[in-house]
Amino acid sequence: MAPSEKKGILERLAAGEVVIGDGGFVFALEKRGYVKAGPWTPEAAAEHPEAVRQLHREFLRAGANVMQTFTFYASDDKLENRGNQLGFTGAQINEAACDLAREVANEGDGLVAGGVCQTPSYLSCKSETEVKAIFKKQLDVFVKKDVDFLIAEYFEHVEEAEWAVQTLKETGKPVAASMCIGPDGDMHGVTPGDCAVRLVKAGAEIVGINCHFDPMTCVKTVKMMKDAVEKAGLKAHYMVQPLAFHTPDCSCQGFIDLPEFPFGLEPRILTRWDMHQYAREAYNVGIRFIGGCCGFEPYHIRAVAEELATERGILPAASEKHGLWGAGLEMHTKPWVRARARRDYWEGLKPASGRPLCPSMATPDGWGVTKGHADLMQQKEATTQEQLKPLFEKAKTH
Amino acid sequence: MAPSEKKGILERLAAGEVVIGDGGFVFALEKRGYVKAGPWTPEAAAEHPEAVRQLHREFLRAGANVMQTFTFYASDDKLENRGNQLGFTGAQINEAACDLAREVANEGDGLVAGGVCQTPSYLSCKSETEVKAIFKKQLDVFVKKDVDFLIAEYFEHVEEAEWAVQTLKETGKPVAASMCIGPDGDMHGVTPGDCAVRLVKAGAEIVGINCHFDPMTCVKTVKMMKDAVEKAGLKAHYMVQPLAFHTPDCSCQGFIDLPEFPFGLEPRILTRWDMHQYAREAYNVGIRFIGGCCGFEPYHIRAVAEELATERGILPAASEKHGLWGAGLEMHTKPWVRARARRDYWEGLKPASGRPLCPSMATPDGWGVTKGHADLMQQKEATTQEQLKPLFEKAKTH
Amino acid sequence: MAPSEKKGILERLAAGEVVIGDGGFVFALEKRGYVKAGPWTPEAAAEHPEAVRQLHREFLRAGANVMQTFTFYASDDKLENRGNQLGFTGAQINEAACDLAREVANEGDGLVAGGVCQTPSYLSCKSETEVKAIFKKQLDVFVKKDVDFLIAEYFEHVEEAEWAVQTLKETGKPVAASMCIGPDGDMHGVTPGDCAVRLVKAGAEIVGINCHFDPMTCVKTVKMMKDAVEKAGLKAHYMVQPLAFHTPDCSCQGFIDLPEFPFGLEPRILTRWDMHQYAREAYNVGIRFIGGCCGFEPYHIRAVAEELATERGILPAASEKHGLWGAGLEMHTKPWVRARARRDYWEGLKPASGRPLCPSMATPDGWGVTKGHADLMQQKEATTQEQLKPLFEKAKTH
Amino acid sequence: MAPSEKKGILERLAAGEVVIGDGGFVFALEKRGYVKAGPWTPEAAAEHPEAVRQLHREFLRAGANVMQTFTFYASDDKLENRGNQLGFTGAQINEAACDLAREVANEGDGLVAGGVCQTPSYLSCKSETEVKAIFKKQLDVFVKKDVDFLIAEYFEHVEEAEWAVQTLKETGKPVAASMCIGPDGDMHGVTPGDCAVRLVKAGAEIVGINCHFDPMTCVKTVKMMKDAVEKAGLKAHYMVQPLAFHTPDCSCQGFIDLPEFPFGLEPRILTRWDMHQYAREAYNVGIRFIGGCCGFEPYHIRAVAEELATERGILPAASEKHGLWGAGLEMHTKPWVRARARRDYWEGLKPASGRPLCPSMATPDGWGVTKGHADLMQQKEATTQEQLKPLFEKAKTH
Repeated sequence: MAPSEKKGILERLAAGEVVIGDGGFVFALEKRGYVKAGPWTPEAAAEHPEAVRQLHREFLRAGANVMQTFTFYASDDKLENRGNQLGFTGAQINEAACDLAREVANEGDGLVAGGVCQTPSYLSCKSETEVKAIFKKQLDVFVKKDVDFLIAEYFEHVEEAEWAVQTLKETGKPVAASMCIGPDGDMHGVTPGDCAVRLVKAGAEIVGINCHFDPMTCVKTVKMMKDAVEKAGLKAHYMVQPLAFHTPDCSCQGFIDLPEFPFGLEPRILTRWDMHQYAREAYNVGIRFIGGCCGFEPYHIRAVAEELATERGILPAASEKHGLWGAGLEMHTKPWVRARARRDYWEGLKPASGRPLCPSMATPDGWGVTKGHADLMQQKEATTQEQLKPLFEKAKTH
Repeated sequence: MAPSEKKGILERLAAGEVVIGDGGFVFALEKRGYVKAGPWTPEAAAEHPEAVRQLHREFLRAGANVMQTFTFYASDDKLENRGNQLGFTGAQINEAACDLAREVANEGDGLVAGGVCQTPSYLSCKSETEVKAIFKKQLDVFVKKDVDFLIAEYFEHVEEAEWAVQTLKETGKPVAASMCIGPDGDMHGVTPGDCAVRLVKAGAEIVGINCHFDPMTCVKTVKMMKDAVEKAGLKAHYMVQPLAFHTPDCSCQGFIDLPEFPFGLEPRILTRWDMHQYAREAYNVGIRFIGGCCGFEPYHIRAVAEELATERGILPAASEKHGLWGAGLEMHTKPWVRARARRDYWEGLKPASGRPLCPSMATPDGWGVTKGHADLMQQKEATTQEQLKPLFEKAKTH
Repeated sequence: MAPSEKKGILERLAAGEVVIGDGGFVFALEKRGYVKAGPWTPEAAAEHPEAVRQLHREFLRAGANVMQTFTFYASDDKLENRGNQLGFTGAQINEAACDLAREVANEGDGLVAGGVCQTPSYLSCKSETEVKAIFKKQLDVFVKKDVDFLIAEYFEHVEEAEWAVQTLKETGKPVAASMCIGPDGDMHGVTPGDCAVRLVKAGAEIVGINCHFDPMTCVKTVKMMKDAVEKAGLKAHYMVQPLAFHTPDCSCQGFIDLPEFPFGLEPRILTRWDMHQYAREAYNVGIRFIGGCCGFEPYHIRAVAEELATERGILPAASEKHGLWGAGLEMHTKPWVRARARRDYWEGLKPASGRPLCPSMATPDGWGVTKGHADLMQQKEATTQEQLKPLFEKAKTH
Repeated sequence: MAPSEKKGILERLAAGEVVIGDGGFVFALEKRGYVKAGPWTPEAAAEHPEAVRQLHREFLRAGANVMQTFTFYASDDKLENRGNQLGFTGAQINEAACDLAREVANEGDGLVAGGVCQTPSYLSCKSETEVKAIFKKQLDVFVKKDVDFLIAEYFEHVEEAEWAVQTLKETGKPVAASMCIGPDGDMHGVTPGDCAVRLVKAGAEIVGINCHFDPMTCVKTVKMMKDAVEKAGLKAHYMVQPLAFHTPDCSCQGFIDLPEFPFGLEPRILTRWDMHQYAREAYNVGIRFIGGCCGFEPYHIRAVAEELATERGILPAASEKHGLWGAGLEMHTKPWVRARARRDYWEGLKPASGRPLCPSMATPDGWGVTKGHADLMQQKEATTQEQLKPLFEKAKTH
């Protein structure tokens, strides 16, 4: 399917269509052996294109309408910072990523979205000009490769996100802006609602949330954005691309501060049935660009597409290999396994962890915790058995 | 690396080398959208070869020395039974699977193992001759494609496993035999030790356990096999390819009977650190063919390879994208995340599930449970408020 | 110690002393066999005085300075409503309760507090005059028996609490007012802060929270009260008497709506070490009347008294039978049990439930939940395998 | 009810009656402030008789037929060892305990059982003569006070239990013998079956298990005893008095080795509904003397009596204050609380702990664990990032 025959992202959203995003490349490719946790840089686009292409293809099969270029953390300052020792330039990586996304998008009804994200330059207090120049370098590749639209995602500070949107807008392509914040707002305490209003004013046609929190938290935060944008008399479309991990115990910086990040998150992975709930809730709230971030595997996106099959009027290709609501178990030899081939069963299941020595929630790390701990240490010294001896004497004679 | 240059499986094991197996294809490819849960048949080998090839490649990169042909449940009776509606013959699927395994094996130090598993024919009480004929059909392909050795795996009944071994032995190739049983033995109560002795006597050079139970349970069961084989004065090598799910709550048929099977197992997935423990324990017990089954992703196999890197004298290719024991976090901006870049941290972590409404263990389904429930129902009727009224009267006047 | 020699409640609080309350009589006596769960009425004061006296005595030994008369739900309308079939009049029960409290208070440094709580009359929309008449009847007994001060406690509606305070004030005795609400406020949504201001204006010298929520939630709610009272330029003392159950999963009506109420709360019971944390937190927040409600046993009150021993200048009598922070284990024969005889150990312990089939949190019952469930049922009908069949066809040809 | 009118313990058991024991005095009185954890000695019998009498009375009301003298650890060597600084002689404590038990037994259908338990003398390798002399001293009091029968309980070594039984037999009174072991047997590995046979041969008419493990584990262990006694062609009655704590994670010395012992066991406390299951299971197995040990409060014993009300033909007095299976909630104002007034509800409830940071099971302390930990420490040094550097090089060039 040639790009020219396809409806653009804004036409789709304006028509009320549900657009399904893809899942999280860095986490999925880390597990497949192509991305290093810590740096999380996407040099695999140039180094192991077959692995990246295959993952794009799986998300397309799962129902994704958007192929995001695998360019997360592919700004020059990041690649330098983390040490790109493989000899690829930033431009090479970004170009390779565009080619792969386009190749697979053409195999179906996919759009290519060029993506930029927050930069080390901003965190080290570089100027607006310098930060925008960083975005511009990636953008040059996206223009050259003629991506279908642009996404500025994974921003913890609304100011940097605004700079990104402003830079992206110069291309004339549609711009989506997505922050990695929760209901408590950005790292300077700007509320999700205020963030959204500022991003729409900066030119974003689509605003929303990605990464850092679990689906329900992200949907709730996008709802806060939507309410504020509407209250401000502005117009926008809404997107959400959450984690595929349950994070009810997160503090404001999300899963980064959980003790399990990033190598012990397995027990938190969402089931496909959790994804049905997520997709329905996102849809009910009025979000129409619904995808995933870290932890989303192809079957998670397929579950989103299956939940919204009626609304979208189509099931994804990969549903050929999936009985809805466990229907694939209908012919199992054991009656109690056959009994699992129904919606009620899976919706009601409270899946066990198989880990009786582990808790269900964790205490996030961070400065707050550390401080509280120090206070506690001081208190402890106040009351000891020794000091209380005279009080014991008093108690006896009372 | 050409097949002819490589040492065979028995030479390696005889030399005391650690041979690393690959992971679970049906589960991994189900999540990627190429295998249907329920039938679990491997037509993707012919239908979507690029997806199967990619998964082989990832396991090779992760350190696997064995590429098992993706021929699980690819016997003709199974394909018919479950309904192979795609128009591929069993032979086509088996041949395609052999070609893919060989292609990737040649990219590194991999051996190709042709695999057969338990058949519907046995379960429906077909004769020894008929069942062996079923194995023979797959075997003809393996011989034609000249695989390096053969694995008879996933057998719940030792009798069928013996028939498989006997059939496989006729090729003259090395034969491994692996049952999917736990410490309680096969479905007729034959102990793991007796199973192992019978399989060795039937001709298997390697015996062990795959699937159905978690790593520690499987290692324990192989240990029981090894003790019995040695006590019988026989000789064998040992293999283990367990689930990548924690199953402390399983009954005798393993994870099939868990309420979470197969679509709610996520919270049970092992972390990479769990895999280090598994690899070490398997090694300590004397097992030298160490791999994985359902749930194992490439990073799980990589963890096995990393734990045994000193013993094997090599790290896998995919370790280029992995800091050992979290070393990739050493340069994180947050001190509390940097503090996770050490072995102690990950070994001591008790990962939270993020699911406060879920338990840590489940009650397996099955006849036993159902019977207990019926008994309970009867008991209930015995004691009701109504019946006890006269006793209340008695209590008051006592 | 004669009543006349003792400092009154307001003198103590004005002097900055910590006053320790007692624990929950209805729950403790239910477990001892003297109170019926459901009605929760206190006829045992007249029927089994030795049991009530003994419990008072245990709280006194544990450090309590306040003996609350066991008159919870002892208003005439409640006793009728719930069916007092034992032939005691309300006055008899209230008088017996006063006598028991006074008898034990005289054995030490205890004050007697006459208690009233919310009435069925208010809930059935009786007039202010009628409700106040109900309070007046109990009050007549308290005046006759000359209690030291009065507590209006366990009110879910601030309006009824105001009426109670106004009635109690007419006696000229000090009045404490305590609501059973959480941070979300009373059943009409009046915030804790507004409740507190209204109660102080109605004449209460002490305001606070009792029952329905766990210690930390109650302390937080009293803090909200204190902040509002101070902001309003008013003056008051503060009290807290929470549950001894962990209730992180409560909705606005507290533990009543938890599925475990009232016969399955055992796994939620606080340890003595949890009580140390509670007492310290309550003290830090500026609360000086610190006690307990349902679930508090004598050893819980003792832990409060031990935590605040330095501030109070005394240990309770029952500490003769308690080594601080596990010191009683110092001479155990096993070294690993001796190792538990230290503060760090017990503060850091995350106690296991021994219940691997149970979750850590519950979903509260209630209308909200029921409604959500109904919605869910409707949604379910929307998407079935059957309806999606044409979409499957479409997927295949896509 | 005078002692002379009552049937003796053996007559009751011979007639097939269910005899209900009482609960755990040291734990209950520790929480009430009269026993010190660590020493666990019963000087309160002499020091605070009203508290001990009250607890006896509550168990009688709850349905107990046996009042055990509060003489646990009241042997002279123990009282000396732990430091009896209150000036009571062992004889005074034992006599006071007998008087209290008799006083309350006479208030209903109770029998007085004089109890002895394991001694420090045995653990410090004193001779059979010396150990028996210790038992004899307590026994002299029991004879003088004319208790109804004798219980030798809480023995970890069958040899010492035999000595106790032999000594107790000399009085001519019926003798029950109860060990605090689990299915793995006594501290020298003597199986429960062999223990039981030896105790019956030594003269015990009743044998069984008390303390250290949860109800289901204890019932299972008594079943092992019963099977062995019957297989040996001997005759006996059976008793069980377990913990009221869930201990699925115990090792061979039971709850002593759990990290929560003794001050963090709250989340493990059994509900009354757990007690119904226990009572039914004990009855089904053929045990007819059914009581409790540490953790059992009066309402636990009442639940046992209520479960077996039909078999016993009577409900306990305390059931006047208890609606069976939650019936007391039938008139609650909230429909969802009323919905809890039924057997199904409470039997199916999986009670939440309210502790999301806590696990469901613990790892027992002890030498085994400690050793395993040491091994782990050594292993750790084997594999470090540094040592593996050359392997990384090799991986890259492979």
